[in-house]
Amino acid sequence: MEIKVLKKVLEANDTIAQETRTLLETNNVRMFNMIGAPGCGKTTLIEKIITAIPEPRRLAVIEGDIETTLDAERLAALSIPVVQINTSHFGGDCHLEAAPVKQALADLDFSGLDTIIVENVGNLVCPVEFDIGEKAKVAVLSVTEGEDKPLKYPLLFLKAQILLLNKVDLVEHLDFSEDLLRKNLKQVNPHLRVLKVSGKTGEGIREFVEWLHTG
Amino acid sequence: MEIKVLKKVLEANDTIAQETRTLLETNNVRMFNMIGAPGCGKTTLIEKIITAIPEPRRLAVIEGDIETTLDAERLAALSIPVVQINTSHFGGDCHLEAAPVKQALADLDFSGLDTIIVENVGNLVCPVEFDIGEKAKVAVLSVTEGEDKPLKYPLLFLKAQILLLNKVDLVEHLDFSEDLLRKNLKQVNPHLRVLKVSGKTGEGIREFVEWLHTG
Repeated sequence: MEIKVLKKVLEANDTIAQETRTLLETNNVRMFNMIGAPGCGKTTLIEKIITAIPEPRRLAVIEGDIETTLDAERLAALSIPVVQINTSHFGGDCHLEAAPVKQALADLDFSGLDTIIVENVGNLVCPVEFDIGEKAKVAVLSVTEGEDKPLKYPLLFLKAQILLLNKVDLVEHLDFSEDLLRKNLKQVNPHLRVLKVSGKTGEGIREFVEWLHTG
Repeated sequence: MEIKVLKKVLEANDTIAQETRTLLETNNVRMFNMIGAPGCGKTTLIEKIITAIPEPRRLAVIEGDIETTLDAERLAALSIPVVQINTSHFGGDCHLEAAPVKQALADLDFSGLDTIIVENVGNLVCPVEFDIGEKAKVAVLSVTEGEDKPLKYPLLFLKAQILLLNKVDLVEHLDFSEDLLRKNLKQVNPHLRVLKVSGKTGEGIREFVEWLHTG
């Protein structure tokens, strides 16, 4: 019974996501769904990405949070269009679904955009299960989270087109083995591209901006 | 319609959780529900907690993961009873529910126990919504995750009886303000006890073990 209901929810979600995908393709806008754990550094990375794009920036951000507009305020300070979705209005959802994202897109003027980054709710599990109409999922994992995460939360690493391995500036202070992480990733998804980045030093951000426009 | 179904699921869950709570109280066993983001250091903390308890250890651990028995293997090496729950058997749930925890408890001999630690699935959101019959929820937040988490994920910090602020050994390498974190925590739950710990250096572990037995 529960499973049937969940299936219906997912089917309804997929229909809306497909409408969004068609809408974005028609308008030549590429939307990316950024997914990672709470505190893995998504917002700081997006700040660095924004400033790495030369003006006029044809970029907008959709911010997903359960509560608060803290992240949206940080990004709006950088003079790009930001739309906040607070899932507390939908019962405190731990992920974004296609319907509120489609509604958020109605607030954006596509004529001034070529790229939209959606910062999903901080969570390695549920956001992966809901298509929002994105071109690609971008996984973010911070080196402080450990090498075992691809094995323990495989779906994200299986479905993402790129992994941003964040906070690499902290590696020297951690017992972190990049080799072990890559070995674990290979078990889950041998084709996943890994890009080492730092929201602090800016390492890898330029390469990621290139990927956003061509990847 | 969906909300009705969710309500029914939560009601059924609460009934089982209450049965578990009665069972544990009858057997003088205290069960703690440890909740934190992926990579916040829960398993390493539990390793340190185990070794800080003098033998004979009257402690068992229930490990919640979507996939793998990696964490259970790490802990079983320390010669305590460990039961693994893999939620991939229940559709990849991002949290533990009361029913599988009750089932896991059937594998434990209460006569040799006074404490059970349940390591929930790494997630700041959904685990908080499901009572599993615990005496108290233990929140874990690593300093690498940032000061804004209590505002963005308030429910955990509202419902937990104690917050383990983990990885404090890394503070000197981060732009982290403990004052700001405490200010944010005060907005959500002014009564929450905060204990600074390190899974690396062992800082605060002895105090937490005391709390487990008296708190």
